[in-house]
Amino acid sequence: MTEPLKLGIAGLGTVGAGLVRLLEAHGARLAAALSRPIRIVAVSARSRGKGRGCDIHEFRWFDDPVALATDPDIDVFVELMGGDEGVPKEAVEAALKAGKHVVTANKALLAKHGVALAALAESNGVALNFEAAVAGGIPVIKSLRESLLPNSIERIYGILNGTCNYILTTMEEEGRSFADVLKEAQEKGYAEADPTFDIGGFDTAHKLSLLTSLAFGTEVAFDQIHVEGIEKITQADIESADDLGYRIKLLGVAMRTASGIEARVHPTMVPKHSAIAEVSGVTNCVAIDGDFTGSMLLVGAGAGAHPTAAAVASDIIDIARGLVIAPFIVSTRDLKPHQRARLGEHQGAYYVRLTVVDAPGTMAVIAKRMGDENVSLESVVQRRERHVLPGSGKAGVPGRPAQVTLITHDTTENAMRAALEAIEKDGKATEPPQMIRIEKL
Amino acid sequence: MTEPLKLGIAGLGTVGAGLVRLLEAHGARLAAALSRPIRIVAVSARSRGKGRGCDIHEFRWFDDPVALATDPDIDVFVELMGGDEGVPKEAVEAALKAGKHVVTANKALLAKHGVALAALAESNGVALNFEAAVAGGIPVIKSLRESLLPNSIERIYGILNGTCNYILTTMEEEGRSFADVLKEAQEKGYAEADPTFDIGGFDTAHKLSLLTSLAFGTEVAFDQIHVEGIEKITQADIESADDLGYRIKLLGVAMRTASGIEARVHPTMVPKHSAIAEVSGVTNCVAIDGDFTGSMLLVGAGAGAHPTAAAVASDIIDIARGLVIAPFIVSTRDLKPHQRARLGEHQGAYYVRLTVVDAPGTMAVIAKRMGDENVSLESVVQRRERHVLPGSGKAGVPGRPAQVTLITHDTTENAMRAALEAIEKDGKATEPPQMIRIEKL
Repeated sequence: MTEPLKLGIAGLGTVGAGLVRLLEAHGARLAAALSRPIRIVAVSARSRGKGRGCDIHEFRWFDDPVALATDPDIDVFVELMGGDEGVPKEAVEAALKAGKHVVTANKALLAKHGVALAALAESNGVALNFEAAVAGGIPVIKSLRESLLPNSIERIYGILNGTCNYILTTMEEEGRSFADVLKEAQEKGYAEADPTFDIGGFDTAHKLSLLTSLAFGTEVAFDQIHVEGIEKITQADIESADDLGYRIKLLGVAMRTASGIEARVHPTMVPKHSAIAEVSGVTNCVAIDGDFTGSMLLVGAGAGAHPTAAAVASDIIDIARGLVIAPFIVSTRDLKPHQRARLGEHQGAYYVRLTVVDAPGTMAVIAKRMGDENVSLESVVQRRERHVLPGSGKAGVPGRPAQVTLITHDTTENAMRAALEAIEKDGKATEPPQMIRIEKL
Repeated sequence: MTEPLKLGIAGLGTVGAGLVRLLEAHGARLAAALSRPIRIVAVSARSRGKGRGCDIHEFRWFDDPVALATDPDIDVFVELMGGDEGVPKEAVEAALKAGKHVVTANKALLAKHGVALAALAESNGVALNFEAAVAGGIPVIKSLRESLLPNSIERIYGILNGTCNYILTTMEEEGRSFADVLKEAQEKGYAEADPTFDIGGFDTAHKLSLLTSLAFGTEVAFDQIHVEGIEKITQADIESADDLGYRIKLLGVAMRTASGIEARVHPTMVPKHSAIAEVSGVTNCVAIDGDFTGSMLLVGAGAGAHPTAAAVASDIIDIARGLVIAPFIVSTRDLKPHQRARLGEHQGAYYVRLTVVDAPGTMAVIAKRMGDENVSLESVVQRRERHVLPGSGKAGVPGRPAQVTLITHDTTENAMRAALEAIEKDGKATEPPQMIRIEKL
């Protein structure tokens, strides 16, 4: 049995307390498996006395996380404070400079300063591990750094935000509106009081920026991601998707294209008969397409105290085993600049929902505008008027708004946008068109 | 750049040739990422001159795999011959004794001699890695050894045989019989001329025996697994499952119970609306329930030259990075004996299909026999007679055989067996009852 691996934990919120409980529950077994005990020696948090469901009185207490980060008695600094500037950043930097390994769940910090922190870790010969930063219960960072390294990755995509997936799943299962479900999610504590960061797709983009770097060997470039949220998804879209054999998910997608890396976050149609379509509620998933491994899908808890604590623990275990991999696989010196693909050149199929005046000739105009841009249609469905009660079977009324939903064959984003703009100019649409990309799985 | 990691590969079938191609395609990138080239220096195979779609003339040739295994110039012996006795076993033993790391895809060898070989690896301080032995394209071994180590695993289960899943998926999608689909699979080369090993569930059991040891820290005990194959699954079962909201998959399941490890391979009903139900064709999956991580599902290619070669390469990469973990996580000295749970005490719900005489009182007898054993029924469906054309809507004819399908609430295997035995004794059933376990996901 070698010397214990000594941890200093900054941040004792749900994840930090979960980690304390995990090491209470499994410390002895882990010590046997690793031939090395993992021991928490010091902690830091906002409030010392707060009830956390775990016993911290045996750990040395630090008011200042930065002081904890450089304490001579710790081997690993575990950063679970969150926040992309200020103390968390200073503490992680101080730890790395002091030659401490760092384990963090802080996606915002890494999305903003990941490359600089990785460079610090490399120059000090220590680990900067962040499995818990993306899809806590899914070992996607480890899969990219290790299991899938033999591959050239062609695409990585997934459901990376539990709040959005919960809202979309509930809208579908209960036939309720976005606003209604969001309000309930906020009341239940599944969504923040200001939900913009989640439902606007930004949290997904933070995570995607890290996955993109790992998958393609490029610098972290959160600001180069095209981001759309789920705010505009209506019950009409969900029902039409179902009719047409699809389900709507907020996906983060990054893929290689001829013009660069296409990284995008947006509501996406996925085939109803696919494993990813069955990833429901707060569950997350990540799919990775490699040239040798083929397609691999990982499904698991996206967040939560215990799954996230387990991810942090797995990072610590790697350190205990002496495994230190460059944070972004290759040295930060060898990371390529993120070359952003032109989204206009995105190739794929589209779902379009148009609210139009139900008058003779409307369909002909729509079809002509699509044809003018060489967009060919796989299916066209004219649905009964919105706002009628489900099951009333009420057909559209001439002169009043009707819903037309289209699925296109593969085309380009530029062609779609041009066609929809032309249709809007024709004055047949009574609302802005809804356009949702279809992802081939 | 340190010294190259030098490989000797025994076996140049599809996987071996795939590995040669993988290192041709990605060797330079891997060398950069690892700061260490991976180099094939010697090979051995049945026939030197055979066309393989890869160039092997630069590698030293060995007629004898055992001589290759102990060659002073290799660091890692890669065993891709297959077979659980004779030369492959001798070669792996010789390599381990000579202090060579071993990477193998040979599940049969490990299911039979895994613990002895692991002990050899440990005493010689080398790796015995076998990611490719179970669900090639899915990093399940690595997940158990590393990512999920913080957990106490409660259950591990999955679709581990592509041939069976292909047959069941095709039966369902095309409404064809087992015999018919099997014949076609054999003609296409998806199934062996003697398919017993696959369709009888034994291949799944080999893989499950390895997963069980890793998950529960027990000795490998292939012969302690309850094994049923898919031969008796009929179109009637598939249709009834669909009616009742289920799909049939051949699962390998291992779980902790009060009386020991319940390890079983059998056709299983899984809810139609689940990710695992959408794992179709030759794709494999593994689900793992941990006390902290919760449920995690991994989906990917089960076999194939390239996915398997990538798994072998990932094992080699771990060695190049200096990561050597005990083959079954803990030392073989610390593996517990496999204590087999009594299957009769299995708790769960069941699907039962009875072919009965369609006469007054039959249902009452069935219901009484179930009630006598305290088996309560969730649903009962009497279907039209079998062998009528789908869609004919032909109802059952009194006095002729009818199909009764039941879904029970949770009960025990012993109760189910007793109830079915009593029903058979009553003489109402014209065929042996079909009983399929339902797995809670």
